[in-house]
Amino acid sequence: MILYQNQFVPKDKMHISFEDRGYYFGDGVYEVFRIYRGKLFEKQAHMRRLVRSAGEIRLRLPYSTEEIEEKLESLVIQEQIEEGTLYMQITRGIAPRAHVFPKNAEPVLMAYCNEVKRPLGSIKEGITAVSVEDIRWHRCDIKSLNLLGNVLAKQEAVERGAGEAILHRSGRVTECSASNVMMVKDGVIYTHPADNCILHGVTRAVVLKLARQEGLEIREEARSLEDFLQADEAFITGTTVEITPIIRIDGQAVGTGRPGPLTVQLQSAFEKAIIS
Amino acid sequence: MILYQNQFVPKDKMHISFEDRGYYFGDGVYEVFRIYRGKLFEKQAHMRRLVRSAGEIRLRLPYSTEEIEEKLESLVIQEQIEEGTLYMQITRGIAPRAHVFPKNAEPVLMAYCNEVKRPLGSIKEGITAVSVEDIRWHRCDIKSLNLLGNVLAKQEAVERGAGEAILHRSGRVTECSASNVMMVKDGVIYTHPADNCILHGVTRAVVLKLARQEGLEIREEARSLEDFLQADEAFITGTTVEITPIIRIDGQAVGTGRPGPLTVQLQSAFEKAIIS
Repeated sequence: MILYQNQFVPKDKMHISFEDRGYYFGDGVYEVFRIYRGKLFEKQAHMRRLVRSAGEIRLRLPYSTEEIEEKLESLVIQEQIEEGTLYMQITRGIAPRAHVFPKNAEPVLMAYCNEVKRPLGSIKEGITAVSVEDIRWHRCDIKSLNLLGNVLAKQEAVERGAGEAILHRSGRVTECSASNVMMVKDGVIYTHPADNCILHGVTRAVVLKLARQEGLEIREEARSLEDFLQADEAFITGTTVEITPIIRIDGQAVGTGRPGPLTVQLQSAFEKAIIS
Repeated sequence: MILYQNQFVPKDKMHISFEDRGYYFGDGVYEVFRIYRGKLFEKQAHMRRLVRSAGEIRLRLPYSTEEIEEKLESLVIQEQIEEGTLYMQITRGIAPRAHVFPKNAEPVLMAYCNEVKRPLGSIKEGITAVSVEDIRWHRCDIKSLNLLGNVLAKQEAVERGAGEAILHRSGRVTECSASNVMMVKDGVIYTHPADNCILHGVTRAVVLKLARQEGLEIREEARSLEDFLQADEAFITGTTVEITPIIRIDGQAVGTGRPGPLTVQLQSAFEKAIIS
């Protein structure tokens, strides 16, 4: 079933208007929640980010956050998903095509769940990455439906035989095509500050909190691609990838070319967090 | 009627899949053609740009350009539009949500016409504009469906009481939210070069050609916002706005605060071009 507005609709009966501003302009915001043991992980953090993204593009939410949460939770129960993801998007509604906000359009909410297993193989073994120039707009902190830059970066990574694209802008590593990225050097964890250049990842925030709890030193500082190539460890963080080590960048081994000790320590702390 | 793939579908029967990549990612390209006297104006230029945009994001067109042209022309005839616009978009197709290009998805083409009168009032009287920072991605030459930056700029302009937003990046004026922009100083016409910072407007190209035919001096050079504020004349060019004078920028009169002589000369040459 698909949650469309506040109704559950069978997948094959679910259609979108061709005049939905999501279709014309990518004029909307989205969230991807992780479902562990039948529950939405970090639900409040995702909801806060949804509210913030919508506010930044001045999109009115069609329901209260409590109503949205309640609907999303009934969706998970109804679909009986134990381990999976919940995708939700809200667009500015249906109106004849014009850039300016429509006066009387109702925002359109759509959400559905999928069973998705944790990617345990790549979490353990790591993935490779390639560097790609970050050509996206300057409000990457908004989780909007304008994702063509991310799509093209990911496609380039895959075609170059890698699992992710490490994006860099003006010499600084920002994030990846669909995840945040961190590196470790001399025992310090570095990641780009949560400004307009990156998405403020929910898993990123969880990892930073766990790192602090583990007594690890963290600096939210942009580092260069060269720094990443010289790093002892690197890893990505994201809702579906969790903490996945990067073992090669542009064909060059990161550290020993195997998941590093701080990465493994954080993974272990993350494991505990998701079953608590 | 709506042209959907190669079929004509009644508007109320027209639906889009929620898994269309246009809806998830804005993963598609579009064109807006002008219809004058029942004919697609500058049809070849629009088709060339469509092919280029699709090529740049590596989107395969679902039909040959000849087939697409033929379909668009039958649409105009069937809808009996004498003066209007034809909107067309092509997305990368329908597939479960994943950034990487889907393997077997068919691109989705949609097009329709509207009767739209020429905006003769604003063409004669001019419009006001406000300056807005250009925060869009760095491939504005691709006419893609990632238009949230343009939407937000246009909305800001309207809320500040203006008709258009003049976008500027690193101190340089690029274009407007849904049109190109030119200025005149000491008899010379200036407009941003057709690089990755602006859409390569079809009307922009027509105006440059007409200006050359009129013996006017043109420089495709980026100018600062300050230059625009000190200009003798300024105007926007676009498929629906044609050549529309800008008479005020950020509340300050451009030149005399009335449409300038070179603007009027170009408008008159444009009038001849569209009825020829």
